Amino acid sequence: MEGKDYKRFPEVRRKLYVIVFGTDTPAGKFFDIVLLWAIVGSILIVTFESVRELNERFEFAFAIFEWVFTILFSIEYLLRIFILKKPLKYVFSFLGIIDFLALVPTYLSLFVTGGAYLVVIRAIRLLRIFRILKLSRYLSEAQMLGNALVASRYKLFVFIGTVLSVVLIMGTLMYVIEGAENGFTSIPRSIYWCIVTITTVGYGDIAPNTIMGQTLASILMLMGYAIIAVPTGIVTGELVKENTKKSMMEIRSCHSCNTEINDPEAKYCKECGNKLIEDVEVTL
Amino acid sequence: MEGKDYKRFPEVRRKLYVIVFGTDTPAGKFFDIVLLWAIVGSILIVTFESVRELNERFEFAFAIFEWVFTILFSIEYLLRIFILKKPLKYVFSFLGIIDFLALVPTYLSLFVTGGAYLVVIRAIRLLRIFRILKLSRYLSEAQMLGNALVASRYKLFVFIGTVLSVVLIMGTLMYVIEGAENGFTSIPRSIYWCIVTITTVGYGDIAPNTIMGQTLASILMLMGYAIIAVPTGIVTGELVKENTKKSMMEIRSCHSCNTEINDPEAKYCKECGNKLIEDVEVTL
Amino acid sequence: MEGKDYKRFPEVRRKLYVIVFGTDTPAGKFFDIVLLWAIVGSILIVTFESVRELNERFEFAFAIFEWVFTILFSIEYLLRIFILKKPLKYVFSFLGIIDFLALVPTYLSLFVTGGAYLVVIRAIRLLRIFRILKLSRYLSEAQMLGNALVASRYKLFVFIGTVLSVVLIMGTLMYVIEGAENGFTSIPRSIYWCIVTITTVGYGDIAPNTIMGQTLASILMLMGYAIIAVPTGIVTGELVKENTKKSMMEIRSCHSCNTEINDPEAKYCKECGNKLIEDVEVTL
Amino acid sequence: MEGKDYKRFPEVRRKLYVIVFGTDTPAGKFFDIVLLWAIVGSILIVTFESVRELNERFEFAFAIFEWVFTILFSIEYLLRIFILKKPLKYVFSFLGIIDFLALVPTYLSLFVTGGAYLVVIRAIRLLRIFRILKLSRYLSEAQMLGNALVASRYKLFVFIGTVLSVVLIMGTLMYVIEGAENGFTSIPRSIYWCIVTITTVGYGDIAPNTIMGQTLASILMLMGYAIIAVPTGIVTGELVKENTKKSMMEIRSCHSCNTEINDPEAKYCKECGNKLIEDVEVTL
Repeated sequence: MEGKDYKRFPEVRRKLYVIVFGTDTPAGKFFDIVLLWAIVGSILIVTFESVRELNERFEFAFAIFEWVFTILFSIEYLLRIFILKKPLKYVFSFLGIIDFLALVPTYLSLFVTGGAYLVVIRAIRLLRIFRILKLSRYLSEAQMLGNALVASRYKLFVFIGTVLSVVLIMGTLMYVIEGAENGFTSIPRSIYWCIVTITTVGYGDIAPNTIMGQTLASILMLMGYAIIAVPTGIVTGELVKENTKKSMMEIRSCHSCNTEINDPEAKYCKECGNKLIEDVEVTL
Repeated sequence: MEGKDYKRFPEVRRKLYVIVFGTDTPAGKFFDIVLLWAIVGSILIVTFESVRELNERFEFAFAIFEWVFTILFSIEYLLRIFILKKPLKYVFSFLGIIDFLALVPTYLSLFVTGGAYLVVIRAIRLLRIFRILKLSRYLSEAQMLGNALVASRYKLFVFIGTVLSVVLIMGTLMYVIEGAENGFTSIPRSIYWCIVTITTVGYGDIAPNTIMGQTLASILMLMGYAIIAVPTGIVTGELVKENTKKSMMEIRSCHSCNTEINDPEAKYCKECGNKLIEDVEVTL
Repeated sequence: MEGKDYKRFPEVRRKLYVIVFGTDTPAGKFFDIVLLWAIVGSILIVTFESVRELNERFEFAFAIFEWVFTILFSIEYLLRIFILKKPLKYVFSFLGIIDFLALVPTYLSLFVTGGAYLVVIRAIRLLRIFRILKLSRYLSEAQMLGNALVASRYKLFVFIGTVLSVVLIMGTLMYVIEGAENGFTSIPRSIYWCIVTITTVGYGDIAPNTIMGQTLASILMLMGYAIIAVPTGIVTGELVKENTKKSMMEIRSCHSCNTEINDPEAKYCKECGNKLIEDVEVTL
Repeated sequence: MEGKDYKRFPEVRRKLYVIVFGTDTPAGKFFDIVLLWAIVGSILIVTFESVRELNERFEFAFAIFEWVFTILFSIEYLLRIFILKKPLKYVFSFLGIIDFLALVPTYLSLFVTGGAYLVVIRAIRLLRIFRILKLSRYLSEAQMLGNALVASRYKLFVFIGTVLSVVLIMGTLMYVIEGAENGFTSIPRSIYWCIVTITTVGYGDIAPNTIMGQTLASILMLMGYAIIAVPTGIVTGELVKENTKKSMMEIRSCHSCNTEINDPEAKYCKECGNKLIEDVEVTL
């Protein structure tokens, strides 16, 4: 009987693998969708638990749901380890670590209070949604965004360095000018105000009162207004470059008369009428 | 006499059709302009009705105007149904449903109170303005904007997903750090604050008070500041691509010497002097 | 004697013309610079006059300066009319009307109180600064900006129409949801709040308090955040197009081998070594 | 002995030069890194000194650290002068003046109070960080940003002039409309409010209360919303142009058949199969 089990074992494992890790079969897709909704549900419960009026009325129900979800996720986690031939690779992968960290807070809450809210780390598990949707498409787009950011990293470092220096110097100046009596009680608080201002958030919990402070604040605002144009310009510039590169690769030439064909849907050369050959295959 | 009526009927219907649905004749244009002003008028009345001082003085006048407009719009609606050969197609079209919904609230207000303000749905009826103006021009521009948004939908989904995750995790962290005594009374409220901050709106009705909360808020603001660059870059990138595509289609080649002609207003080839033929006709 | 005067007259007029309207001679430049500083001075006086502490101390000095400036500007205005052969053309030109309107408030203040601040219309007179600087350069740049705005006017109209509809409908919804007890006392005030929110200004003088109101506000903010990408994308797209058009016109071709020369500073063809001819003269 | 010293002297100086000014040797790199951390440390101390609770407890430690850092920086400054053959060139260079100004406030604080915070000028010394990192790369990127800003300076001047005029005129109008009872106590304060609004910061410390004031504020906000698109568009346009110029220089042509090669990694001509020669060497 043990031998029989041993033989059947890989078969079960393979079937489970298709369901738990695959998304092509109906069962695999169903598993992933249930999982996603369970994640959303468990996040909603943590969120609602924090609303006092709701918690007073549904405290018990919230606790039960929270434990049901956590136990389900624990079973799923163990299942993943059990199915894989090389479980350690999964355990120490990005998604594996997130899956584990998403379980810890609830168990910890048995011993320590206050940490239960950390289960919102489960939000990162929602990344699995890209596996159900056409993954590759999103990946190529996300990669393009990533490329744009990576390509402009030096420009962005220069930019962030400039902003931090401005905020540091302006924060100190405002502390000296306005002083504690107008809410600028320390340089760190003054720097916080500078960031609130330069990013155009402007809570208004601290605001300059002296004429000189307001003049300096006006300059800071106009700087922030001008500065926002820079990262936008950088990222846009890179995206346009990526787009251009992609579209340049799509320009074909007629094999007969060497004319450039700009229209990607043309089938015949607009100059000599020869049939065009699909000679450049782009696979981004 | 009935037969006579029956014969003349289509004639009347055609004339009415030209006035109500057409915009090319003076009468048709006049009808549409009167309709638009009536819509604007009825919206203004609802708006002013909500101002207490005005309502106390002009309550009766407002009610009369509101009913006059509603009855006029009802007549217009019935007229449209009466004129068309296939009225059902109109009734269930987008504009047809809006036209109907724009009538309902006033009639409903006879039985239920509070819903009268829903007549602002009439604002959507103002879309008809594009029919008076050169419709096609606006359509092609709106379509270009739409194309840009559709083409960048995967990038935008990735972007929105990222923003929502950031807001969820940061909202929970701020709730744990600042707590109810600083206004972060629950996670949903804390998430609301995160959205207020990351979009750089910054009401200031809730604001962090602890040093750690202010540090986290600063990071969130700088993230929001950087993040805004991404959708701008995406939309701009697409628009530039559309523009480039359009302008590339406008480049002509000389039929004699095959030189590319970049200047859209050139009449003779700059290389060999041959007269250029208008060979690419763009109809976007 | 009258005849003599009559003869000398045109000579004086021509000399004055060169000083008052011209900018190429030292005297003409000096006149314009003095005029600009006088305008700045008179604006500063109006500005400082409104600060109570300053006005209490320097009321008399302010009044004298204000009248001195106004009389000087009046003389200048009459001089311009006197010099020109066709003064009416100037009087009814844009700058002429502004010059006149900039004088009126001070004289009016003899009869009516409160209007004296309208002299800030003089700020528009500062446009003359472009005459001293290299006018043409600024004009071509300003024109390029203008072109970009004009070329994208249909897109911008569609955009503004969308924003206004959103603000109208959202304003009414917030009025119904939040009501007068949370500061949304009327629909116009509610629309004002919507504009404050969608533009990410966020004063915080009115802020939603109910959960539903805060949810709606969050959606509005995220919309505003996304919407700002659109006009930026439109304007940028047009500017990039203008830039591309300009740079495309700068591409030359070698007359010997027909190779495209991309480098605007190349003097010899990179393919065949022939000397390049400056064949495309761009005059934007 | 003096002669011996005299001979050895240049040797010591050269060694010190390599350490203090160079970054290629381990010792030179170590020196720069220590220096940077010392600058960060001294800035942190000034920042923390301004927090009252911290200052009360660590006042003595802060003072000692502050003096230790200042003395170290003084030694470093004298060392730089001593090492160089032409020290005056360094003393009056940008970095030299900053190095000097960064020392002054601490010494001044012996005689005058309040100026000690000005040591944050040391933040500018952090620019040295670019010397440790691959300087040239950052420089070329920073220069590209700089080029984009310089190339668009006329457009930006036109833009800033427009914003200032709008703010001046709107500020006066709001002062006349809202008046001192709603917080618009003077025109300068009103202009400050306009800048707070048009940059979408929106503190809410001053906010319009009358209907007319709120209408004008709405217009100002929508203007600010539209206006932000302009500098973004300008900077982006320039960056795209720079990118395009760079990528255009990277387009090669086949020497055999004259076909344009768009793919920067192609090794053989896609038309005739000839081996491509790396003929365009770009050194930005």
